[in-house]
Amino acid sequence: MSSILTNRSQDYSQWYNDLVLKGGLADYSAVRGCMVIKPYGYGLWENMRDVLDKKFKETGHQNAYFPLFVPKSLFEAEEKNAEGFAKECAIVTHYRLKADPNNKGKLIVDPNAKLEEELVVRPTSEAIIWNTYKNWIQSYRDLPILINQWANVVRWEMRTRLFLRTAEFLWQEGHTAHATKEEAIAETKQMIEVYAQFAEEYMAMPVLRGVKSANERFAGAEETYCIEALMQDGKALQAGTSHFLGQNFAKAFDVKFSDKNNQLDYVWATSWGVSTRLIGALVMAHSDDEGLVLPPKLAPLQVVIVPIYNKDEAIRQRLDDKANELIKELRAKNISVKYDNDDSTRPGWKFAEHELKGVPVRVALGPRDLDNNVAEVARRDTKEKQSISIDSLVPHIEQLLTDIQQNMYNRALQLRADKSSKADTWDEFVRLLDEKTGFIYAHWDGTPETEEKIKELTKATIRCIPLDNPLEEGKCILTGNPSTQRVVFARAY
Amino acid sequence: MSSILTNRSQDYSQWYNDLVLKGGLADYSAVRGCMVIKPYGYGLWENMRDVLDKKFKETGHQNAYFPLFVPKSLFEAEEKNAEGFAKECAIVTHYRLKADPNNKGKLIVDPNAKLEEELVVRPTSEAIIWNTYKNWIQSYRDLPILINQWANVVRWEMRTRLFLRTAEFLWQEGHTAHATKEEAIAETKQMIEVYAQFAEEYMAMPVLRGVKSANERFAGAEETYCIEALMQDGKALQAGTSHFLGQNFAKAFDVKFSDKNNQLDYVWATSWGVSTRLIGALVMAHSDDEGLVLPPKLAPLQVVIVPIYNKDEAIRQRLDDKANELIKELRAKNISVKYDNDDSTRPGWKFAEHELKGVPVRVALGPRDLDNNVAEVARRDTKEKQSISIDSLVPHIEQLLTDIQQNMYNRALQLRADKSSKADTWDEFVRLLDEKTGFIYAHWDGTPETEEKIKELTKATIRCIPLDNPLEEGKCILTGNPSTQRVVFARAY
Repeated sequence: MSSILTNRSQDYSQWYNDLVLKGGLADYSAVRGCMVIKPYGYGLWENMRDVLDKKFKETGHQNAYFPLFVPKSLFEAEEKNAEGFAKECAIVTHYRLKADPNNKGKLIVDPNAKLEEELVVRPTSEAIIWNTYKNWIQSYRDLPILINQWANVVRWEMRTRLFLRTAEFLWQEGHTAHATKEEAIAETKQMIEVYAQFAEEYMAMPVLRGVKSANERFAGAEETYCIEALMQDGKALQAGTSHFLGQNFAKAFDVKFSDKNNQLDYVWATSWGVSTRLIGALVMAHSDDEGLVLPPKLAPLQVVIVPIYNKDEAIRQRLDDKANELIKELRAKNISVKYDNDDSTRPGWKFAEHELKGVPVRVALGPRDLDNNVAEVARRDTKEKQSISIDSLVPHIEQLLTDIQQNMYNRALQLRADKSSKADTWDEFVRLLDEKTGFIYAHWDGTPETEEKIKELTKATIRCIPLDNPLEEGKCILTGNPSTQRVVFARAY
Repeated sequence: MSSILTNRSQDYSQWYNDLVLKGGLADYSAVRGCMVIKPYGYGLWENMRDVLDKKFKETGHQNAYFPLFVPKSLFEAEEKNAEGFAKECAIVTHYRLKADPNNKGKLIVDPNAKLEEELVVRPTSEAIIWNTYKNWIQSYRDLPILINQWANVVRWEMRTRLFLRTAEFLWQEGHTAHATKEEAIAETKQMIEVYAQFAEEYMAMPVLRGVKSANERFAGAEETYCIEALMQDGKALQAGTSHFLGQNFAKAFDVKFSDKNNQLDYVWATSWGVSTRLIGALVMAHSDDEGLVLPPKLAPLQVVIVPIYNKDEAIRQRLDDKANELIKELRAKNISVKYDNDDSTRPGWKFAEHELKGVPVRVALGPRDLDNNVAEVARRDTKEKQSISIDSLVPHIEQLLTDIQQNMYNRALQLRADKSSKADTWDEFVRLLDEKTGFIYAHWDGTPETEEKIKELTKATIRCIPLDNPLEEGKCILTGNPSTQRVVFARAY
C-alpha cells in the first residue's frame, strides 16, 4: 500500500500532493488555482472551525457576514493595503451574459452590462468592513466592536498548491474596533495566543509566537503577530496572523468616535485570521509514507473497527454483536467510530485504507480474538499493535486517544528542537540552511534591505522575532553591523 | 417605542425594512444589492444552519466545498440552466489592478491581466459540481454521492430587498448523484420533507408541500418540489426547493456509470437548497408592530432578566444574587439567558428593546417581587404578563418556551386558514386576490400560456400543485378549459 504514495525522502512535495489527493482531502478543479475540498478534508475543517468558533465566542466575539465584493473606490482607500493586494485581485466588470449571436448555444459577456464601478472579489475584508463600521460607531459606547466572519476570499496567486496557496480559500477574519491603542494591542495579542493554543492543543503542532519584520508585515498593519510552525522537511509555515492596524483604516474611512470627554478621535483596529491552509500544515507536520496521521482531537473519525470474518454465519453474528456493543459504549464517551464491515474488500486492504486516511485507532476483531476475549488495537501514530482485553477496551481506547494526541505533539516538538540551530557567521548560516534546514536563530541588523538581500541570496526569510525574545549583543550575519537580538530565519511555504 | 417602526397596517413593506434594520438583523452595504448580516441576524442563521446541518447529516449527507467561480464554458454546458441564470451573473474578466498613471493613489483594472476565459461567480453550483463528479464516478459502486455545500452565491437581481432578494446571499445547496431515477426522486422528496419539517417545527411556520408548474421550475430541472409559506400580508413566500434534475446535468457533462451488469448509463441528479431568505420569512411570518417575534427554538437569546434597581445597594445585591441563581439554573437546562443589568438605561427602555429584538421571554425582578418571592414573566408572542413564584420560575419558563413555540405555529396556521380560499370564477379569483389575499385554490387548464396570462393580468402565480392533491373535475378560471385539479395561486415575494 505504501507504493501508492511517493516517499517523503524521495520527493516531499510530491508526497504531499499525492497524500492530499489520495487521502481524499481535496481535488483539483476546472478553475485555475481553485480546489475542491472533499468531504474528508471538509470534515477536518469543520472540526477546526468548531473549536476556533467556540474560542472566539468565549473571548467575546460574535459572527457576522459582509459582502463578497468591494467597490474599487473603497478597496483603494487604505493605500498600503490596496497596494499589497492589487496585483492578485479577481475583478468583476460585468453583470450579465447573453447569447452569442455567432455561436448557437454559447454565451458571451454582454457589453451593455458593464458595471459603472468595478468590484474587487475580497482578498481580505478590512475595506468593506471599515466602511460599514463608519456607520456603526459614533461614541465610545459603541466600542469595542468584536466581530468575526467565516468566509471565502480570493487572491490570484501565480503558483498554487492544494490547501497551502490557492486562489480561493476559506478562512475566518476577525475585525475589531477599539477606543484605545492599548486595548487594540491587547486584542491582537490575545488572538495570536488563541491561535497558538489551538495549534498546540488541537493540531498537536508546536508554534513559535512572534512578530513579523516590516517586510513581512500585513499590508496596512502597524504590527503583525504570527505563529510559525515547522514542517517535517524543515521548512516553516505561517499558520496564523493577528494584526494591530493602528488607526490606518479608521483614517482611510474616516471612522471617529467621541470619547467620555466628548473629544473626537480615530478608532483603533485589529484583524486576525487563519485559513484552510491549516489543513496543509496539519498534513505536513505529522503524516508519513503510509498516509495521513491525524490528531485525535481533530480527526473526522477517531476509531475504526474491522471484523475479521470467515464463512461461518454464526461467528459473523457474534463479531457484529460484539462490535455493536463496543460502538455503543465508545459513542457514549463521545468517541467517533465506524464499523467497517463492508464485505467487498479484505481486511488487509481496509487496514491500508484506514492508515492512508489517518484514523488514529484501529481495532481488529477476529473469531479467535473473541474466544480469548481480546481485540487487536493498532495506533496510527507509531503503528504499534497490542492485544487488549475486550473488557477494558473502551477505557484503553479513551486513554490511547489522549496518548496519541500527546505523542504527536511531543514528536513534532522534538523535530523542531532537532531542526533549530544558531548561526553566527554567514557560512554557517548557509550551510545550516542547506544541510540541516529548519529554524535558524541568527543576528540581523534590523534593516529591510539586509533582510531582502538575505532572501535573494538564500530564499530564507525572517519568520518572526519571537515574543519575549532575549536580548543579546551580536553582529548581523550578512553585514556584520551590530544587532541586539537573534531573529528566526527559515525557508518557508 | 412602537413609534420607531412603521405599522404593518400602514405600510407592510416599510415595516419589514424598518424591522430588519432596527432589529439589528442586517444593514445596507456599499455594494449594490448586497447586505451586511449583523451579529443578531447571523446568530439566527447559525441556529438555522446548525439544525439543518444535523438533519442533512442524519440523512446521510456530507459537506464539501466547490469553487466560487465557474468557467464560462462549463456554465453554458447545460443549456436551460445557463439560459435561466445568464441574465443575472456577475462576471470576473480580469485578475489584477494597477496604479492609475493619471491619478495618483488610485487603481485601474490592468488591461494586460485579462482572463482568457471569463469566470462566472456561481449563481448555483450544478455546473462546477457535475464537472467534478465526472471524475469521481465510474461505476455503481461510486454511487450515490450525497454532498451538501454551505456557501455564498451571487444573482444580479435588479430589485433587491434585505434577506428576501439580495445580489449575494448565503445558502446551502445539496447535490446528489444516483444510479436510478427512482432513487433520485426519493431523495428529492426526502429533502423537501426535511425542509418542511424544519419550517414547521423550528420556524413555527406552516408550509404547503408541492411541485412547481413548468413555468416556475428551476432552470434545468425535470421537477421542482417546493415549500410555500404565507406571510401576514397574504403574500406567499417560497421557502425552499428540491429539484429532480433527471439526467440533464449528467448528459451535459457526460457523466456515465457502469451498472452491476456492466451497462453504461447516465447518472441521475438532484439538487436542493434553502437560503438566508428564510430569515426574511421568519420575520414576516410572526413579527408585530413592536418588533420581532422569534420562535424559541431559533431565537439567539431565549430569556432576558431585567432587574428593577433602586438606589439601595443592599437591594441591588439581593437582586443580582437571585438573578445569578436563576441564570445558572436556566443555563443548566440549555436555555440561553442574558442578565440585562446595564445601569445606563431604564427598565422601560430595556423592555421595548427586548420586544424589538423578539426575545421570547422577559423576566422582571424588583425589590417588592423579591419580598413576595415572585417575578414578573412576560411572553413576547402574546405580550401577556404573569406574576410567577420564584420557586417554580425555571420549570415555568421551560414550559413557556414550548408553549410560545406551539402558539406561534398555531397562530400562523390560523392565519393561513383564514387566508386560504377557493375561487371558481375569474371575477371571484380577482376579488379574492385583491380583498382577501392569501392562497387561492383554483382550477387551471395546465398550460404555461394560461399561467403566464394570469400572471400578467393579476401578478399572481401558481405557487405549487400540492403533493397528494385531490383530483376534482373543474374548469380553468381563465380559459374555461377542463381541469382535473385545483392549484394554489398567490401573489408572492
